[in-house]
Amino acid sequence: MNLDTILNSIEKSDEKFYKKAQEKTMQLIMPPLAMGMLHDISYRLCAIRASLEPKTDKRAVFVMAADHGVVEEKVSAFDSIVTCEMIKAFLSGVATISVLSKQNNCKTVVVDVGSKCNIEQKDLDSNCKFIVKKIKNGTNNMLKEPAMSKEEAILAIMTGFEIASEEIKSNKLNLIATGDMGIGNTTPASAIGCIITKNSAQVMTGKGTGITQQILHHKISVIEQAIEKHKPDPDDPIDILSKVGGIEIAAILGVILAASYNKIPVLVDGLISTAAALIAYKLNPKTLDYMFIAHKSQEPGHAKMIEYLGLAPILQLDMRLGEGTGAVLAMPIVEAASRIITEVATFDEANVSKSLL
Amino acid sequence: MNLDTILNSIEKSDEKFYKKAQEKTMQLIMPPLAMGMLHDISYRLCAIRASLEPKTDKRAVFVMAADHGVVEEKVSAFDSIVTCEMIKAFLSGVATISVLSKQNNCKTVVVDVGSKCNIEQKDLDSNCKFIVKKIKNGTNNMLKEPAMSKEEAILAIMTGFEIASEEIKSNKLNLIATGDMGIGNTTPASAIGCIITKNSAQVMTGKGTGITQQILHHKISVIEQAIEKHKPDPDDPIDILSKVGGIEIAAILGVILAASYNKIPVLVDGLISTAAALIAYKLNPKTLDYMFIAHKSQEPGHAKMIEYLGLAPILQLDMRLGEGTGAVLAMPIVEAASRIITEVATFDEANVSKSLL
Repeated sequence: MNLDTILNSIEKSDEKFYKKAQEKTMQLIMPPLAMGMLHDISYRLCAIRASLEPKTDKRAVFVMAADHGVVEEKVSAFDSIVTCEMIKAFLSGVATISVLSKQNNCKTVVVDVGSKCNIEQKDLDSNCKFIVKKIKNGTNNMLKEPAMSKEEAILAIMTGFEIASEEIKSNKLNLIATGDMGIGNTTPASAIGCIITKNSAQVMTGKGTGITQQILHHKISVIEQAIEKHKPDPDDPIDILSKVGGIEIAAILGVILAASYNKIPVLVDGLISTAAALIAYKLNPKTLDYMFIAHKSQEPGHAKMIEYLGLAPILQLDMRLGEGTGAVLAMPIVEAASRIITEVATFDEANVSKSLL
Repeated sequence: MNLDTILNSIEKSDEKFYKKAQEKTMQLIMPPLAMGMLHDISYRLCAIRASLEPKTDKRAVFVMAADHGVVEEKVSAFDSIVTCEMIKAFLSGVATISVLSKQNNCKTVVVDVGSKCNIEQKDLDSNCKFIVKKIKNGTNNMLKEPAMSKEEAILAIMTGFEIASEEIKSNKLNLIATGDMGIGNTTPASAIGCIITKNSAQVMTGKGTGITQQILHHKISVIEQAIEKHKPDPDDPIDILSKVGGIEIAAILGVILAASYNKIPVLVDGLISTAAALIAYKLNPKTLDYMFIAHKSQEPGHAKMIEYLGLAPILQLDMRLGEGTGAVLAMPIVEAASRIITEVATFDEANVSKSLL
């Protein structure tokens, strides 16, 4: 299977079940639409699964990790070595995503698609799976050359797609989430956001892991220069991804395509994951039917990305960690939506009187 | 024990542990404060429990039910009979709060403190406990006379306090939530909001279960007339509660006092529960340390109440159901905050390099 075949195979979610879910919701023992946004989530889950009883109990978060050549321009508060150190923390189950995944009955699948390190897998946390499929040892410095070739970008997408599809099939997953690890990756994510949403780097760029105001100005300038130098074609998503993107962003895009292709919901995490979602949307707008924006990040560019996609974020907790933490944190809300449409009684079933109006 | 003894015994949460939690958080393997609002929840949990490992696994939601005399003024879209019908739905485990409580490992304690019905307890759902302690069979119509006497209001508070305290002690609860059932109860809740936050009935009143614009105007006028007639003393919370309040609102206030007295966190649900929180705050501002506002309701008055209390809502999902649904839905977020401070490794423990800045 190649990327074009996948893109051509993705279908819209089932509109009939969306309508059936709306009808059933009006019969549930509560004032009309009293659970607000949860009903919208229910409808969408029903449409995705073509069922009025969409389950969300078999879960995984795919944490895609890679390094970024642009870190040599000193755009981050952390050194690239921290990508490796954090992968190790994922594997030993002590990072935030590890803790939240365990809480939420969600498997952590960590994939090294392009870090600079060689990690030996030992003492692996029982809730974690580790896969190494490196496209390259970090991207090139996009200030000087394209981050990667188009071939590498497509290979990274296909890697994410194949790993996620395999997990979906072998574990019958019905709810997945995206996550990222890669020191420096708010720089490519913001650059992708600039090109697709047509906002300036000034608007799209934030302090990432916590840089100073001075470094922020420099980071904005690096993004502006990289875009000016490579002139990615706004109508060619793979051109954007390869010139100013990241290997883990490409792999996350593959995970989103896997969810869309296999017709299961995918919780999209913050700035990095949503940059991948923008590319997915540009490649095939039908992918939007399968995406849920888990939360609105503290990064200013994230709000602009969400606005562009026209999706409402589930949580607004001013977070900015990545790793998939926002996506996994939103899982119980999605589960609640699935349980409400499935388990709450109707007026007739429970002998409750309807509105007098 | 009487109400004054309880109020005088409530202490502020432990500031030392708040500071220790802040210090520990800065050592966790993530950019500084990258989990946003979750850190504030962690600090507060640590201060409440005087521990850096605050658990939130033993849970109950107290759903206080009562009827309202003011329903005869046709301020609601539903008839009072629905209070009884919904209590039955809680007992058989098919209501929204039943479903969400089961999802979130939370016991449902339903207390009839003043409905108009006589419910026989049979086929009780295994996750539900039902207690009948009626103060009276619904309040008086506040348009004509005070909703209840001060003695009745205090009795309702003490009933909520004693039931919650007993459950907290016998089940070692470490996280509780408030919920309500009572057709017509957005009218007294909005009236309480008007008096305490000093906003007009126009601003504080919403469509509750889903009334028309015309009925909304009438509802606003009923609230204005009741306040004008009884002139509750804004500096006497029990005067407000008895004249324009509700029996279940008083009992919810009792639950909030029980959490504060027993030093455990309480998730406050929407408009009705937050009206009780306003009274709790007026009786003793230290109670605020134990409260978490679970969500921001679709009811316009709720935002004004939250603003008055100065607490940030955890969820913003445009809900307006009550029953404690918003409070229980926020439990996994509170659990995440407790797990992050407890389980995520520090930079030293995980050998992760700190920020270069």
